[in-house]
Order: sequence, then structure tokens, then C-alpha cells
Amino acid sequence: MEDWQALVADERVLVTRDILRYNDMDDNGHLNNSVFTVLCESGRVHYFRERVTPHLPDHTFFVIARIAIDFKAEAFYPGEALTATWLEHLGRSSLRVRQKIMSADKIVAEAEGVCVVMDEATRKPFPIPDATRAALEPLLHAP
Amino acid sequence: MEDWQALVADERVLVTRDILRYNDMDDNGHLNNSVFTVLCESGRVHYFRERVTPHLPDHTFFVIARIAIDFKAEAFYPGEALTATWLEHLGRSSLRVRQKIMSADKIVAEAEGVCVVMDEATRKPFPIPDATRAALEPLLHAP
Amino acid sequence: MEDWQALVADERVLVTRDILRYNDMDDNGHLNNSVFTVLCESGRVHYFRERVTPHLPDHTFFVIARIAIDFKAEAFYPGEALTATWLEHLGRSSLRVRQKIMSADKIVAEAEGVCVVMDEATRKPFPIPDATRAALEPLLHAP
Amino acid sequence: MEDWQALVADERVLVTRDILRYNDMDDNGHLNNSVFTVLCESGRVHYFRERVTPHLPDHTFFVIARIAIDFKAEAFYPGEALTATWLEHLGRSSLRVRQKIMSADKIVAEAEGVCVVMDEATRKPFPIPDATRAALEPLLHAP
Repeated sequence: MEDWQALVADERVLVTRDILRYNDMDDNGHLNNSVFTVLCESGRVHYFRERVTPHLPDHTFFVIARIAIDFKAEAFYPGEALTATWLEHLGRSSLRVRQKIMSADKIVAEAEGVCVVMDEATRKPFPIPDATRAALEPLLHAP
Repeated sequence: MEDWQALVADERVLVTRDILRYNDMDDNGHLNNSVFTVLCESGRVHYFRERVTPHLPDHTFFVIARIAIDFKAEAFYPGEALTATWLEHLGRSSLRVRQKIMSADKIVAEAEGVCVVMDEATRKPFPIPDATRAALEPLLHAP
Repeated sequence: MEDWQALVADERVLVTRDILRYNDMDDNGHLNNSVFTVLCESGRVHYFRERVTPHLPDHTFFVIARIAIDFKAEAFYPGEALTATWLEHLGRSSLRVRQKIMSADKIVAEAEGVCVVMDEATRKPFPIPDATRAALEPLLHAP
Repeated sequence: MEDWQALVADERVLVTRDILRYNDMDDNGHLNNSVFTVLCESGRVHYFRERVTPHLPDHTFFVIARIAIDFKAEAFYPGEALTATWLEHLGRSSLRVRQKIMSADKIVAEAEGVCVVMDEATRKPFPIPDATRAALEPLLHAP
């Protein structure tokens, strides 16, 4: 919990809140693993809209290239989930975000997501422009 | 909006809050219709846990027998949904709830759900006991 | 089962096949009710693409205005679902389809769906043109 | 395609078939990334039920500890997905499976999943018994 407080106090970290739904549970009476990818996506989309997309050329968009999730504890309905998202790495045309999901005062998952900037016209990876890089670098965070 | 304020001010009406997720949208860029059934279920489960199940014998459970949803307006991510749920009818072994879903200051759907009380042992409908009926009747509400 | 065989033998009825997924189940160990709306949608979209949309002007599209589902039996993973869909009613600018869902040799749900033809430009209901009506009337079926 | 044919011809590889649903698509008009985790789960559960669980003591169960998915191409409704699943590694109380998902003649994703054998009584990891290990080792496959 102390680590979580320190994490979310960092301005480079964006917290996204979700409310769990009865339907999120599966036959085991806990959140199905696919719901964690939905929560990660909520956090990722929120982060990009707030902090990344405004710095990108209009003719570009993102695709998700990789997700990896380590499940740390079960999560249950009813309850909430808080997803902390931050930028971990800037590649040539890709970004890697890191995420922690907290529910009922426990870290229930840790995740990474790799997104690639794409050119709308060519549908190919688009190198991150220098101005974008300059704007994003201060967000890099390796807790 | 005035109607909504009056509705949710009524103590017989329970409001359930949900946060919309990026994944709730479909190819049309709005909430997929199946998400409305998920929101209705969140509201229904919440209502039953709070107001109905405590008045029922331990050896009983509920099944959903019918849902009907009238879609009134599109709903969008990002945003929230508030689901108002109230008891509309008590049958011999069934209950009918009514629901309204509000998002972005609009009623986006109206719904009804019929649930049947079942006996765990026989897996057959179980008549609502008199004591339960007496406890639930004050909750009946026909706005 | 006999009724089902007669139903799906009727050329006006279109059958859509789905494979159930582990994630379709909820905490009760059976298909969650929201999955039935997903199956109904698969059947409805299939039916419209095959039999309705080709007869409609290009500048129109459909929205779902109402769904109602009666749950007849539990459905389970692993397994399949067959959704039979047919046209039940043609309104001024709306169509009503009826559906039956079969899984493990049982009718597990019956449903109706009302769709409204919309004008892309005005975003208002668009009256079904005479030529469309003439093409769709032979599909009407009230089993 | 040749690689896929060789892969699924291998008896150690189990193929699970899924039918894509309209609701699997998101706002981008392609399969949402969370659907890939649902397909991976379908494949994993199928594999475990067929090939792993029969060799495990009754008082044990599996939990998913990690999933990682590399997205290789977009997938679209309507269509099918075939998920090839095989055992890649046996740990002390964990198993790692590898998966490839094929849709419309393209590999659309590659994935790994780590599952841990748990003891129902202690809810702690349970070391894979020697007899189980002997039964599973012939299934190990590193294509």
C-alpha cells in the first residue's frame, strides 16, 4: 500500500478508475483474466488521450503490439479497480507503458503494453517525431 | 432530467453507478447493445443483494427469466452510467423490476427484468413466502 | 426438437452458428444472460447482411430499438449455440425479427429484436421504400 | 501457412475453433485485443481438460499466473479463429503453454500462458507429482 501511494503520487503516473461488474466474474467466482486486459485498455486509452495523442501528428494512430499481464491476486465483484499507467520506454516508433492494477487494497496485476505509432496513409509504423519525443521524455518513469 | 431527479429521490429506487470502458463500444463507435444488459444486471444484482435476498429463505436463489430493453439514445465512452432499479410487480414466485439507465444527462435505455425465486433442492420455482411478500410490498413502485 | 427441425427447414429462417467460450460463463457456472444478447446480435447481423441490407438504399443504416429475451433453459460451455432468425413484422420504418436459440438440443432462449432504418444524413427514421418492402414481404414468417 | 499446417499436424498441438462475433469488434472495426485473451483462454481450457487435468490429483486446480500476447495482424468479423495450443515448459508447480491464433489464413497473434497447479486445501502452489510429469513430458514441444 505504501508503494501504491508513492506510485500514484508521482505526476507521471495516471490513475484510471473502473467499477467492477457482476458479469466480470467467471465460473471461478472471481474476475476473469480477460477483464484485466479490458482494465489495462481503459488505463492505456485514458493515458494516451491525456498525455500522448495531443503530441502526435494528426495523420497517425496507435495499435497495440503486445500485452503481458502478471496476475498477482484474485479480484472480486462488487468492488472497484484502479489502474496506474505510466510511460516506461520510447522506441523508434513504439512506446511501452507499464501498469499496476489495485483492487480491494491489493495489487492484483502488473502489466506492460507496447503500442506502435502508425501512419494512416501507409498503415506502416511511423517514427516518433523529435517534438513528440521531447514532449514525452519527461513522462518516462521507471519506479 | 427533472423526471430522473424525482425518480432517484424516491427511496424505493436504488441507483447503481458504472464506469464505461473503451471495450464497451462496438464498430459503430457507441456502446454495444449487449453492454446495456450488463449494466441492467449490475443494477439488478445490486438491488437484490441490498433489498430482496435478505428477506428470502437461505435455500432459495434467483434466476433471470426475461429481460426487455428499449434503447432510447446512444451512449458513449468515456463516461458513466447510472442505473435506477425498482420493484414493479410481485408474482407468485417471480418479481419484476424496472430500470432506467442514464448516461451523459440522457435516459439511454429503459428495461424490465423478471426474476424467479428457485428452490435449491428441487430447482423449481419457489412461492414467495408471506413474510418476504410483506417485506417487499412497501418497495413496489409504479412511477 | 421436431419443432426446431421444422423451423430451420423453412427457407425464410436463417441459422447462425456460434461456439460457446469459457468466458461466456458467469459465477453460476452457466452462460451469463448478456451472452444471449451477443448471440442474438450475431444472428441479427447475419440475417440483415444476407437478406435485408442488400434491399436498402445506400444512405441508410439500422439501429436496434428494442430487444426482449425469454430465457427457457441454462446453456453451458463447452458447446455450441444455433440461433434461428426470421422476419416477423414490417412497420413503417422498422422491422421486427424473432429468434430462437438452441444449445445441447434444447431451446435455451426466445427473443425479439426491433430495428429501425435510419437515414445517414438526417439521423432520423427512414420509411422503408416500396421496393424494399416488396423484397422483404416474402420473408415474413409467423411460425 | 505451411508452418501452420506443420504445426497443427503435430499431435502434441491441440487446435481449438472459435467463431467470431459482431460484438468482438471495437470502435476500430477489428477484433478488440481483449478478445484475443478470450480466445487464448478457450484454447488453454480446452488443452487442460483434454491433456493435463486427467493426470492431476483431484484436490488440485489451475490458476493463470501470466499471459503475454504479441499481436501480429488484425482479425475481423465475420470469420473464425483457430487457436493452436501446446505445452512448452514444465516447472516445479507451473506449466507454460504456447499458442498461435490463425484467422482468415493469417497468424493474428502468438501467446504464452503460465498456469500454476494449486492445492485446494492450502490454496498454495502444489508441486507437479512425478506421475503427472511423466505423463506430460511427451507433450512438450518447442516448434
